[in-house]
Amino acid sequence: MIQSPNGVVIPRTVTLQLDQGGFVLESGKTLPEVTVRYEMYGEINQAGDNVILLLHAFSGDAHAAGLHHDADRYPGWWDDMIGSGNAFDTDRFCVICSNVLGGCQGTTGPGSTNPQTGQPWGMTFPVITIGDMVDVQYRLLRQIGVNTLYAVAGGSMGGMQALEWAVRFPDMVQRAVVLASTARLNAQGIAFNAVGRNAIVSDPAWNGGNYYDGPHPTRGLAIARMVGHITYLSSESMRLKFGRRLQNADGAKLDLEDQFAVESYLEYQGEKFVDRFDANSYIYLTKAMDYFDLASSWGGLDAAMARTRSRFLVLSYTSDWLFPTDQSKEVVYALARAGKDVSFNEVVSPYGHDSFLLEATLQRELIRAFLSGGTV
Amino acid sequence: MIQSPNGVVIPRTVTLQLDQGGFVLESGKTLPEVTVRYEMYGEINQAGDNVILLLHAFSGDAHAAGLHHDADRYPGWWDDMIGSGNAFDTDRFCVICSNVLGGCQGTTGPGSTNPQTGQPWGMTFPVITIGDMVDVQYRLLRQIGVNTLYAVAGGSMGGMQALEWAVRFPDMVQRAVVLASTARLNAQGIAFNAVGRNAIVSDPAWNGGNYYDGPHPTRGLAIARMVGHITYLSSESMRLKFGRRLQNADGAKLDLEDQFAVESYLEYQGEKFVDRFDANSYIYLTKAMDYFDLASSWGGLDAAMARTRSRFLVLSYTSDWLFPTDQSKEVVYALARAGKDVSFNEVVSPYGHDSFLLEATLQRELIRAFLSGGTV
Repeated sequence: MIQSPNGVVIPRTVTLQLDQGGFVLESGKTLPEVTVRYEMYGEINQAGDNVILLLHAFSGDAHAAGLHHDADRYPGWWDDMIGSGNAFDTDRFCVICSNVLGGCQGTTGPGSTNPQTGQPWGMTFPVITIGDMVDVQYRLLRQIGVNTLYAVAGGSMGGMQALEWAVRFPDMVQRAVVLASTARLNAQGIAFNAVGRNAIVSDPAWNGGNYYDGPHPTRGLAIARMVGHITYLSSESMRLKFGRRLQNADGAKLDLEDQFAVESYLEYQGEKFVDRFDANSYIYLTKAMDYFDLASSWGGLDAAMARTRSRFLVLSYTSDWLFPTDQSKEVVYALARAGKDVSFNEVVSPYGHDSFLLEATLQRELIRAFLSGGTV
Repeated sequence: MIQSPNGVVIPRTVTLQLDQGGFVLESGKTLPEVTVRYEMYGEINQAGDNVILLLHAFSGDAHAAGLHHDADRYPGWWDDMIGSGNAFDTDRFCVICSNVLGGCQGTTGPGSTNPQTGQPWGMTFPVITIGDMVDVQYRLLRQIGVNTLYAVAGGSMGGMQALEWAVRFPDMVQRAVVLASTARLNAQGIAFNAVGRNAIVSDPAWNGGNYYDGPHPTRGLAIARMVGHITYLSSESMRLKFGRRLQNADGAKLDLEDQFAVESYLEYQGEKFVDRFDANSYIYLTKAMDYFDLASSWGGLDAAMARTRSRFLVLSYTSDWLFPTDQSKEVVYALARAGKDVSFNEVVSPYGHDSFLLEATLQRELIRAFLSGGTV
């Protein structure tokens, strides 16, 4: 039986209280209704100043820690970073994580029902941005009575949200932990996202995004995931984990069926993913990452960083080639030029982009130290 | 009008003279008939000792130099390395390049007709290896009267063939030029190939490989090419070439149609590729690369290299992350341990794996110097 120091956690769902006009997005379009799924670990203190908002990555969700029931085999995605005495110390902090806008794990997204038609949104869902995700989180927090954040923290797309939080709501964010992330995706990252979207829309079952009452585009989504998965690992970690090992122990048969272990692994990852992820969400969330550009949104990166009033911890990882160290440094230098309080560390890790999910030992100490001390 | 110093070149096609049993492959299976397309630049000398065999990469073909007709818009793939006074000097050498076994540009492959059925082979084509490709080249050369090679030269999959030549036919190869290559593909390379094959076989038009009389799996093949193309470039070259530039000059519209320049470029590359490449060849040739492993085929890399009697020039490229420098060094160290004559250079180039096709200036001098001097 799987154990988690965070025990069984019950997800919560709230519907945002919106003006008559609905939720206005960065594109100018509106959503008539927004529902948000979130989880909470630890308790809000009397002063209401001990809340840490965790921001999940592209394929993550609100389930950051604990189990959903006693027989649950998979704890939340950052279970080994959250809990009593851990980096995100639930004895001290109230840790909140919500599923992003556009997602498919309980928050409004393209797979949700459009209340005006009674049908799934599909591709009629408006384009959403990292800014829109953060705006939804802001309204969620205000609605549940949280007015200040001890910290925001996230890796990859979660790091983008952490940066956006610090820039968009500078008075509310005291600390920002930005892991394996960037102020803007580079051309290679955009290219990999484009391949994933192409794989999805080329699957005939995708059907222009209208597949919710029929077969889903599982092949296209699985291929998108396979490409993504390669980019989350490093060449070194793949060498260590698989090398040129064949699936069949008795050596290469020199036929087309014979598979290398790495092939079977990728196919398994692809197949597993389609059970839990919506293909249209893949399209909308990758597009949000592509469009994210703090520099162009705020009149330059320096101007964006000048707005912030948080302390920053920025971590990159030596083997991360998808969000390489140079991109973290771009953020760090801009913060430094703006005279902000920023700590930076390039963590030595072989696990590629996934290091922020896997390299708990080193990261735990760096984050714990950063979060120590009282309210700024 | 496009000019080429190599003028108009007429491809030649020969059918190999085989024993009754046909062409026996490494797998033990046989091909009843093998046809080979090749091109020739320069003249064989009286002594017959001035032939250089060029070995093309995965998506290359026999058309290494010159134009196919006066209005041809695309010269051969290494036109800027071949010609009078060039690295592969046609005043001095007879340069030959043939399309590989399993290919789709005139040499027998899965798109060829199986003479026993009168139908295209499709997936009934036997698995072929880099060794089989080299064996076909060997027979072609012997059949046209070439008994010794001044040099073999190739990049990427062409470099694999160059290494195989030096190991398999040590007495015939005097020099081997091995560019951006490896003695065995790493796990990441195998993984990217697996994604490409998955994209193809997931296209319903692929139809188990039987598509030659109907619509071809163009979407699947285009996606495979898009993935491949990203791996042939470097992150730096993509940044320089595209950055975050949008296809529409008037800025992000925040909708799903809006494209970054790098997306449009990749889609164009994918679409262009399907006009000239056969999806089944994609499957067979990537599988041949995956299986290539000089170490496991010859009782260890040292044992393989000990067989060789050539001089070697090995070049890697700083920004090549698909066939990184470490893999070239593995070959170089094994050659050095075996006491062989090997020159190695890591060429500084931003163009990624494609550098061996693009970085003509530096490469030209290194190859020219290596090929200077007489018969060993």
